[in-house]
Amino acid sequence: MKATIVTIGDEILIGQIVDTNSNFIAKELDRIGVETYEMISISDNKQHILNTFAQLQNKVDVVIITGGLGPTKDDITKKTFCDYFDDQLVVNPEVLAHVTELIEGFYKRPISQLNKDQALVPSKCTVLHNKMGTAPGMWMKKENTVFVSLPGVPYEMKYLVENEIIPKIVKEYKRPYIIHKTILTYGQGESLVAERIENWENNLPEFIKLAYLPNPGRVRLRMTARGTDKGELEKAIEENVQSLDAIIHDIIVGYEENETIETVVGKLLAKNNKTISTAESCTGGKIASLLSSVQGASRYFKGSVVSYATEAKVNVLGISQDLIDQFSVVSAEVAAAMALNVKDILKTDYAIATTGNAGPLKGDSNAEIGAVFIALATPEGVITEEFNFGQPREKVIDRATIKSLEILQKEILKIVQ
Amino acid sequence: MKATIVTIGDEILIGQIVDTNSNFIAKELDRIGVETYEMISISDNKQHILNTFAQLQNKVDVVIITGGLGPTKDDITKKTFCDYFDDQLVVNPEVLAHVTELIEGFYKRPISQLNKDQALVPSKCTVLHNKMGTAPGMWMKKENTVFVSLPGVPYEMKYLVENEIIPKIVKEYKRPYIIHKTILTYGQGESLVAERIENWENNLPEFIKLAYLPNPGRVRLRMTARGTDKGELEKAIEENVQSLDAIIHDIIVGYEENETIETVVGKLLAKNNKTISTAESCTGGKIASLLSSVQGASRYFKGSVVSYATEAKVNVLGISQDLIDQFSVVSAEVAAAMALNVKDILKTDYAIATTGNAGPLKGDSNAEIGAVFIALATPEGVITEEFNFGQPREKVIDRATIKSLEILQKEILKIVQ
Repeated sequence: MKATIVTIGDEILIGQIVDTNSNFIAKELDRIGVETYEMISISDNKQHILNTFAQLQNKVDVVIITGGLGPTKDDITKKTFCDYFDDQLVVNPEVLAHVTELIEGFYKRPISQLNKDQALVPSKCTVLHNKMGTAPGMWMKKENTVFVSLPGVPYEMKYLVENEIIPKIVKEYKRPYIIHKTILTYGQGESLVAERIENWENNLPEFIKLAYLPNPGRVRLRMTARGTDKGELEKAIEENVQSLDAIIHDIIVGYEENETIETVVGKLLAKNNKTISTAESCTGGKIASLLSSVQGASRYFKGSVVSYATEAKVNVLGISQDLIDQFSVVSAEVAAAMALNVKDILKTDYAIATTGNAGPLKGDSNAEIGAVFIALATPEGVITEEFNFGQPREKVIDRATIKSLEILQKEILKIVQ
Repeated sequence: MKATIVTIGDEILIGQIVDTNSNFIAKELDRIGVETYEMISISDNKQHILNTFAQLQNKVDVVIITGGLGPTKDDITKKTFCDYFDDQLVVNPEVLAHVTELIEGFYKRPISQLNKDQALVPSKCTVLHNKMGTAPGMWMKKENTVFVSLPGVPYEMKYLVENEIIPKIVKEYKRPYIIHKTILTYGQGESLVAERIENWENNLPEFIKLAYLPNPGRVRLRMTARGTDKGELEKAIEENVQSLDAIIHDIIVGYEENETIETVVGKLLAKNNKTISTAESCTGGKIASLLSSVQGASRYFKGSVVSYATEAKVNVLGISQDLIDQFSVVSAEVAAAMALNVKDILKTDYAIATTGNAGPLKGDSNAEIGAVFIALATPEGVITEEFNFGQPREKVIDRATIKSLEILQKEILKIVQ
């Protein structure tokens, strides 16, 4: 079963916003065995929308469309959607009651014609009720393809996908199973890894596809199996993970099922009843922000001192001015002291510290642009590592953040094993 | 002049990663007057890639493709790209020298055949040299359409777009001007705003397009003008901004030229020689992370205390346990104390504090899920505001972060005016 995701909106095409709706929908579809064949972003233009619909007709089973359902003149998706089906717009009484309740009851203002028009839907469509906003979702079939139109506001779109579309697809379509398994490797580049596992890769069964996902310093290997017998797929994946492990055991550090490093680390901390704090200079709070983005983070994340200015390192973290003068603010010694001190201040088992120069200009020290020291205080002591993450600034911050969490992950794994 | 952006990679279609490359490229193209007609994400499948190229042939002037240029088996873009042009792959000596230098000189390991193959390019293509990695960019014309293939690694792609593609398009193509102006309004919903400005909107000239970008609590109005006379476009935009201001002056709070709130606030702080710190509970360091993501942030951002656990509020920020017991940890009083104390500790002009319950479960207090108190300490005193940002968790954190920066922006604007 195949789907195409169409996002409509000039704001995407001029680069004003990043389209994250497609990613959310693709993930949800993948989970229930629906293959996303394409994602397409197009403008708020009637002919462009009609052409896109026509081009997808009977090529995929489902087209999921987001955007352009607002009450204003630039939102033309609903009218165009209706035209495509040669249908006419009629008032849906349930939607009208919901819109009225929202405007008059919640926002406490008189309902206008533009508001009321939100309750207009094509006469033949199945309405998907949007409890999160005024624009309903619309589900309509033509020949072999179902077209579903959803509002572009992420929270409204997510609500409708989770509560209406996924259950409806699960009920109405037979779908295969799609299973992914991602193996994390560290320390060797993708071409080297590819050479080592060449024979293994050549012997993978037809229904398992292998992908290399390189990041600086690590390569993730993703196996994807598609088929109708879930047990058989799982067995085949498991066997191939075993045989892969026999070949590159030295560089495999873990597995992920689409999990982020902050979720993996969070689970490890929670499971082992360990707590964490951070003292951040060049990462500016990003590590704390990632750690606290995970639900339930309060069980293991105690807090952070973002000591961006040197005086914050002295005043809040209690780093001695002598140490800074002797080694400079961007040094292994200062990173170690930051980690140890914040661990003491916030009474945690582990503490991460970063100090470096994210660039593009030199800061409070003479450190090279891109240079970062990461320290991890553990129940046993403190370790420090030096990196140069190059440029640009966002890359230095991102890589220092991810690397810090990876160092933490490795250390916890060591201790708990 | 029209462009289509094609991103290739199964990891996008299964939802493993969000495609941010398209957004970056679209923004760069928009800046030089190139209209992005479509963005398409497709799988690492030869026939799918060939069909997509054929479908775009002569429909747009430029097709910019990212992804699938790595050295491993799953990367098939280069071979397919070459097939589409009926060309053959030949070794490019300059690329080979660069790859050899990178592998042997920088990574200190013997070069392999897979590495060497990175220097293979279609014989008739223009090579775009990639200083950031091993995969070169390739520029090739067929009939009326140029196809450009780039690596999918964001830093490599960005380097090639900024240093090779944009200059080449500017040199070789005549392009119109595209000017955007976004007006920020607060406090009225989009349907209400639309009703108030209906006449004004109907009288906009043909070459100016208006878009409504609603967010909870605010609506951004984006005018986009396209044409060949830059002066005339700017004049028309300016006149219409003036006439719009006359109608909805009460709700207009500012303008943006695709700038993020952290950049706008950063400029305001730097320009007025003011400094900022934060004390964050429910936002977990996200405000600090955004503030410090802006280059030159060290001029105004001093640091932050992420007091996620209650004990961190007491021990690091010096909030009295009595105050917490009396009002609870999620309260206006505690938010105000956090802002005032961090302002003192880090010696800044302004300080933002947040405390709330991001959910999905209740935490250290009985506060409703979604409830957030934001406090801003200013040179004059402290203001606090209470919000309920609902659910899910990510929305609460994001909205509290943005709202905090908006409150800061408003206060600085007040004082400097």
